[in-house]
Formats: sequence, structure tokens, C-alpha cells
Amino acid sequence: MAKTTDDGHHIGLVGLAVMGQNLVLNMADHGFNVAVYNRTTSKMDDFIAYCKANEPSADRVHGYADVKDFVKSLARPRKIIFLVKAGAGTDAAMNSVVPYLDKGDILIDGGNANWNDTIRREKEFKAKGIEFIGSGVSGGETGARFGPSLMPGGSKEAWKSLRPIWTKIAAKVDKKTGLELTGAEPGKPIKGGEPCTAHIGPDGAGHYVKMVHNGIEYIDMQLICEAYSIMKNLLGMKPDAMSKVFAEWNKGELFSFLIEITADILQQKDPENPRKFFVDAVLDTAGQKGTGKWTSISSLDLGIPANAMAEAVFARCLSALKEERVAASTSLKGPKAKKYAGSKKAAIEMIRDALYCSKICAYAQGFQLMAEAQHEYNWKLDFGTIAKIWRGGCIIRARFLQKITDAYNNDKKLQNLMLDPYFKKAIHKGQANWRKVVALTAEHGISAPAFSSALAYYDGYRSAVLPQNLLQAQRDFFGAHTYERVDKKRGQFFHIDWPEPGRPQLKV
Amino acid sequence: MAKTTDDGHHIGLVGLAVMGQNLVLNMADHGFNVAVYNRTTSKMDDFIAYCKANEPSADRVHGYADVKDFVKSLARPRKIIFLVKAGAGTDAAMNSVVPYLDKGDILIDGGNANWNDTIRREKEFKAKGIEFIGSGVSGGETGARFGPSLMPGGSKEAWKSLRPIWTKIAAKVDKKTGLELTGAEPGKPIKGGEPCTAHIGPDGAGHYVKMVHNGIEYIDMQLICEAYSIMKNLLGMKPDAMSKVFAEWNKGELFSFLIEITADILQQKDPENPRKFFVDAVLDTAGQKGTGKWTSISSLDLGIPANAMAEAVFARCLSALKEERVAASTSLKGPKAKKYAGSKKAAIEMIRDALYCSKICAYAQGFQLMAEAQHEYNWKLDFGTIAKIWRGGCIIRARFLQKITDAYNNDKKLQNLMLDPYFKKAIHKGQANWRKVVALTAEHGISAPAFSSALAYYDGYRSAVLPQNLLQAQRDFFGAHTYERVDKKRGQFFHIDWPEPGRPQLKV
Repeated sequence: MAKTTDDGHHIGLVGLAVMGQNLVLNMADHGFNVAVYNRTTSKMDDFIAYCKANEPSADRVHGYADVKDFVKSLARPRKIIFLVKAGAGTDAAMNSVVPYLDKGDILIDGGNANWNDTIRREKEFKAKGIEFIGSGVSGGETGARFGPSLMPGGSKEAWKSLRPIWTKIAAKVDKKTGLELTGAEPGKPIKGGEPCTAHIGPDGAGHYVKMVHNGIEYIDMQLICEAYSIMKNLLGMKPDAMSKVFAEWNKGELFSFLIEITADILQQKDPENPRKFFVDAVLDTAGQKGTGKWTSISSLDLGIPANAMAEAVFARCLSALKEERVAASTSLKGPKAKKYAGSKKAAIEMIRDALYCSKICAYAQGFQLMAEAQHEYNWKLDFGTIAKIWRGGCIIRARFLQKITDAYNNDKKLQNLMLDPYFKKAIHKGQANWRKVVALTAEHGISAPAFSSALAYYDGYRSAVLPQNLLQAQRDFFGAHTYERVDKKRGQFFHIDWPEPGRPQLKV
Repeated sequence: MAKTTDDGHHIGLVGLAVMGQNLVLNMADHGFNVAVYNRTTSKMDDFIAYCKANEPSADRVHGYADVKDFVKSLARPRKIIFLVKAGAGTDAAMNSVVPYLDKGDILIDGGNANWNDTIRREKEFKAKGIEFIGSGVSGGETGARFGPSLMPGGSKEAWKSLRPIWTKIAAKVDKKTGLELTGAEPGKPIKGGEPCTAHIGPDGAGHYVKMVHNGIEYIDMQLICEAYSIMKNLLGMKPDAMSKVFAEWNKGELFSFLIEITADILQQKDPENPRKFFVDAVLDTAGQKGTGKWTSISSLDLGIPANAMAEAVFARCLSALKEERVAASTSLKGPKAKKYAGSKKAAIEMIRDALYCSKICAYAQGFQLMAEAQHEYNWKLDFGTIAKIWRGGCIIRARFLQKITDAYNNDKKLQNLMLDPYFKKAIHKGQANWRKVVALTAEHGISAPAFSSALAYYDGYRSAVLPQNLLQAQRDFFGAHTYERVDKKRGQFFHIDWPEPGRPQLKV
């Protein structure tokens, strides 16, 4: 496979920002000849020069300054990956290659496109005889370079053409342990293992699943932040001590990329002041504009109670109001709680349980959302496979995901992840501590919206009766919205002619 | 004003569903001659017949079977109110009258339109020389009949024409007490008082503010549901005992329409079994499809941390999963909490404080959202006036709103309602109890997402430092997203070249 096929390069890529560059090198390392194009030619020239100077697979990277030459250099059916800014930029870049395509050629959007755009584009290109794949690419720059998690959506035929490449360049997972195979180097990619890619479904399915992945990434990070905040503010722990806690947690069921890097970050010294910890120098304002927000909007649109995932987005919004918070901190008082006097070791175990139980609930929400989306958009998603291809490459990679795969393999019709025996047992074991942590944060004035909303979700989901009977009665009272009865079949609606206080009864 | 003006009726109305009928009678009672039109003529005929048989102002209601006759019957500039289903139905109804309009005529959408549609329609009609007002109409059927809260958005010129009618038919509030004047009867409308209407702003401003009103209505109802649930599940109280508690609460600072009707509902006996309480017969599943959801989507889009408002929407979503919850209730276990052994009286006071503090935070979120929206959409909203016109007519009417008006009158630039001295004091006074309630619900397994999310919001907002420094470090680690520093000016971005565990460091 070292050579270009008779009629051209294996694949092309448009958009040489950091993700694009790394994906090109990943493909080249796997023996694919890659044509590259960038709107600003100098960027392409720089990249080619960099490759020649540094990269073992440089001779498989071919730069083109002219878009027509670029397209015509590809073997048919042509496959062109786009890694450009989502939105109008993507449309413009794709339209620039269209005049030179033939029927059956395949465009692949590897950016963080909104799934609705992907559904639209797939339809538009199909009308022109061009195949379209919207593929989630997760794992940041390192993932793109040495093995991302790839979530392609599109027609089965197009996937058949792309599969040999996607399967090679994806992250690999050890079949026995379910953990990612590591140790790749430039020119020496990972060999063997199970690839972290699979055909997700038609049109927008890949980008939707990637979006939910990102929504889960938001909540995973928020849960870690809350654990950190409680250790810091309730237990008065320093970053290096917390680093040890996260490193310890990473040996057990919380084993994951995000816990691992958290341990790394917390022991890191400030580059500008080696006597201080790095994390204390970082400003506490997080942005949010993309996929996490879309995930929560989709959950609202589809009526899925993914409250913990939304809290992770709102927590970022609140963090962004730095000046307001600093001003409010001198005005709004907290509780007069006594200093925490219990065992620190026990408290750390409590926080661990709170994090783990909340994580189970948050993932349950993500999968509930995908389950509803597949009905809405006419997809058929395989949740065991989705969890499986998240085990490596992507930001949320974790031992945990193998358990999710197992859960769906054990019960294809599992209605909610919390009901799987393994996860149910974990919650039952951890819930007493989880509840204590939520109570402690409330009493001590420590904001923990993800821990507490996940608990409210758990307690709501396991409630045969919720108080919305009162709400329905209110709606019937002021808006004649009618109500259903517990002792009648669903779909029968009743109404009481309520006398409105201070106002005459209506007769209309 | 009893007679039609020389050249036609004062106003026309299209759409004779329950809201439309009541609004017509309200206008007729105030001396306006109203032309009415309905796509299905028999519905119009039935309404006219009903009026003749029952309504003192029947002779001011004029039915038209032909849309051209209907339009031509109106005095110029013609004013036509639409109360039809939001969405495509509204466009169709409006387009049906357009051929018969003259320049300067005014169309008024009184439905629950999405503000984006209103912005679009205002622009489209303006291009045709037609004025367009999107007006929120709140208060359900009784409000429409005897005095709604009216939130019109559109040009100042159009408002000038509509104002005499809108001011007459709106709910009226006593200038001294700030409370709604009640006692209207058919043919005998309220006289005097301050009308619950004001020009909100251009194009979509009125419908946006009405939407936020509804979002607040969602959270108000959810907070009451949680108070009810805690009294029921923690204290084992029966509906009639809870009714007395709500009636008692309604004498103080919680005085409001929703608390009042809750007291009424809880003492109501089941019409099908007078030995049982009505509320226990109502099914606990609430729908959500409209304005509450839009409010939360808008808060996500604008980056405003309105988490409690979103929890109210999600709580409805969760309630809708009745069958799932019933199944899960036999499988997912709750805590082994001891029965609550404290004073019931003290617990009720705790719950009251939790409700009141949460309510302040939730309203703060709603006003924060409107404050951001006015920048996004180029409006200039007067928050004191908005609270003022919500004091009567609408579902959230309450003594509380006068306090909000006072807060914004005292400080036009108030950044957050929680910072107003009155509300701040209320939270400081109630927070110990609020925290106890959140802790108790966590320990006892009672889902209270609005109480706990409002508390997390309060504690987050008053935190000069939140844990998102760790989150920004994580983002810099895996995505090279860079970070800002606490000791450097905002807008300077830094990056550490992190060695990724198990993977070689990138050089690209």
C-alpha cells in the first residue's frame, strides 16, 4: 500500500489546521498516499516543508496549490476529507471541489458539524450523485495523529469505500482488556487491536453521536471539577494531594483519560513560578458555544430529561461571568457551616462514590437521548458499538465504556443504563455516600450542580409517583388544559370547572 | 365609545378558540365594536348565538363569514388580532387578510409565537407597508375575559394606535397595594387602576418577554410541586393539611395566584369519589412542548446560566416517562434514611424558606436572560415595567413582582436580582433552612431538582473562584485550547506543551 494506486492518491484532505495536519500524518503513517489542499497555499507549503524535515512518512503527503489538480490527483471513487470550520466555511470549501467531481465520489466532513447541516448536505449531494459522509472525529490533535475515535454517518456504500482507511487510522483497543493500545510514534503506528470506528447510521447519525460524545465530555469534566472543588473547599486539600487522589482513583473503576490527565495537571508546577501549582494560576472561566450546548438543546427538543448534561453547560456559562461573581462574592453571604470535622479519608471515598454514581446517571442521560434521537431521525443506533468505539482515541475513553458495551450486549433493549445490573449495583453501593456529599455541599455552600442534578434525576427516575399531579391540576385550573386520572386508561382527559379566586366563573 | 366609529368597527379578531372568544368579550365589555372571523364559519355562528343569549355586550360583536367583508368592516388604520395556533397556521391566517389591507393597517399576533417568527413577520409586513405587533397575552381564558397581562412588541406608531384598546382591556392593579383589582363580571369590567400592559420594545420583544414569563411560570409551578412533594414524602402530610399550609403561606411574601390555587386544589375532593382528595386521582405526567422549552434553549444559546428554569422543563420531561418510572421504582433502590423526626412545624417553615429563596434565584435567572437577550436582539427593555405589568392578569401574578419593580426602580442598572437589598436580605434570612431542605431531600431520596439547582446557582454566583480553572487546564491539555491566567490581563492566552500519557509528545 506504500504507493499511490494506478489512477491516483488514496485520499485527499482539505483544511490544514491542527486537526487536518495530524489526520494527514496518521493516514500517511498507515501507508496511504494523501493529497492535501488548503485555501491559503502558504500554509500547505509550510506543512509539506515540515513533513519533509521531520516526518518518516513525508513522501506520502502530496501538496496541491490548485483545487482542480488536487481533485484530479485522487483515485476514484475520490474520497475527500474536510476539516474546516463548521458552518458556512464547510459549505464553501465543499462547493469549491464539486465542479471537478464525478458521480460516486465521496465527500467526508470530519468537522464538528451540526447534525442538521449534515442531514441537509447529504441530501443535497445525493441529488448531485455525490456521496456524503459526516464523520465525528474525536481525540483532539493527539487522537487525530495516532488514533482517533471515528463516528461516520452516511450510506453503506460510501462507508464501504472509506472503511479500509478509517479502520486503519482509528485508535485501537486491546480485545481482552478493552483498553486503548498506546505507544505509537511517527512512522510507527499501532498494529492490531480493535479499531475505534464503525458505521453509525445514515446521514447525520455520525455527527449526532459525536455531539452526544461531546456533551458527555462536558459532564465528565464538570463532575471532575466538582470533586476537585469539594476536596479543595470542604477538605482544604492542596493540588498535589488531590493529584494523588485522582491517580489512586485512576487505578479502579474510574480509570479514564480525563481522570489521568487531571492527576497530571494537579501536580504540575506553574511555569511562571515553580514554587506554586499551575492549576491555581489558571483563570476559572470556561467558554461554551458548540456541541455541548447543542446536546442540551436537542434533549430539550426531544423531551429527554438530560438535566445533568445541561448543568455542565450552565456551569460553564456561570464560570464565564467572572467579574459578576467577584463582585457578588463580597455581597452575597454563604452559610455559617462548621468546618468539616469528619475523617478526610472517608470524605474522599464519599466524593469518589458521588462522582461515580453521578457519572453513571449522566451517561444514562446521554444514551437515553440517542435512543430518542434515533426515532426522531429514523436511524437505528447500536449502543453497544457506540460505547465500544469510544473506548479508545476519544477524550472520554475509559474502562467504564467497556461496561456500557457489556450492558447493551447483555440486553439489547436496555431502557436505561441505570437499570443494568452492574451499574445498578454500583449506584446502590455508592448512593449513601453520594447523598452525603450532596448534603454537605448544600450545607457548606459549595456549588455542585452536576452531582445534585444527577441525584435528583436518579430519585426522580425511580419514583413511581412524582408531584406533577399537582402541576397538572394547576394547569387544568388556570388553562383548562384537562388532566388524566390514575384510575382511568391513558388518553382519557378530564376537566373540573374551577371557580377562579376573585373572579367570576366562566361560562363561555 | 359604544358605537362603531364612522368608518367601521374598532378592531377585528381572527380565531375563535377559547382565548379568542374571551378576548372579544373583554373588548366588547369595554365598549369596543369587534368584528370577528373564523376559518370555520359555524364556529363563528355558534359564538355569535352564544353572545346573543348570554352576553350583555353582544351587540358589539359582529360576525363575518367572508374575510374580505370582515377586513373592510374595520375603521382605519385597521387593527386585526390573530389568536390562532402558532407556526404555519398563523402565517396562513395573516396572509388571508393581506390582499384587503391598506398601508398603515396593523396586524396583531396574540398567540404564543416564537420571537424569531415575530421578528421575521414584522420585517416582512413592514416591507409591504403593514404594521405588525407581536403581543404576549397572559392569563389563560379568565385573564383574556376579564383582564390579561399584555406584552406588545412592535413599532411605537403601531402601539399608539393599539394602546387605547390594550390599556382598557388589560388587567388592572391597585396603585397603592400593587395587587390586582378583582370582581369583574360580564358587562361590568374593572374601572380604574394601573393597566397591566406597556410597550415592551420593537419586533419580537413582546413575544420574547412573554416566553420568559412562561419559563418563569414553569419554575414557579415546579417549586410548588417540590414543596408539596417534600411535605407529602418527608412529613407524610395529607392534601387538606397541605392546603392549609399553602393558604397560610399565601398571607405573606409568597402571596400569589399560583399559591392560592394550590391551596384550593389541595382541599378539593375527587369528583368521582368525594371521600378522596382530587389531587391523588390526577396522573403525574406533565407535557412540555412550547415556551418553557424555548426559554431554556434561548438561555443555552445566549450562554445565561438559567439552570433552575431548565430543571423545571426537564422535570416535566421526566414526569412524562410514567411507565419507565413505575418499572424503575421496583428495581432502583432509595436510601435507608431514618424517618424525619424533627418538628413538623419547623420543617414546614424550612420548606417555605427553600421555596422563597429558590424563587428569587429563578426569577433572577429570568431577568438575567432578558438582559442578555436585549443585547442580542437590539432591544432596550425596562425590567421594572415588565415586572409591573406581570402584577395582574397573568399566571405568575404575585406580591413578589412589586418587589422586583421596586428593585429596578431603585437601581436601573441592577446586575442581578439577588443583589437587590430586599432580595439579598431574604436569601440571607432563609438560606440556612433552604440548605437544610436540599440536604434532607438528598438524604431521603426525594427528587427536588429546582430547589437544589437554584442553590447551586446561588453558591456558584457568589463564588469569586469556581473550579473551572481545572477545566480550562484540561482543555489546554487535550485540545491545546490555551488558558488565561489569574495574574495576567484578560485576553492573553497561554499554553503548556503537555506530554500525553501513553503517547508521544506532538511536534507539529
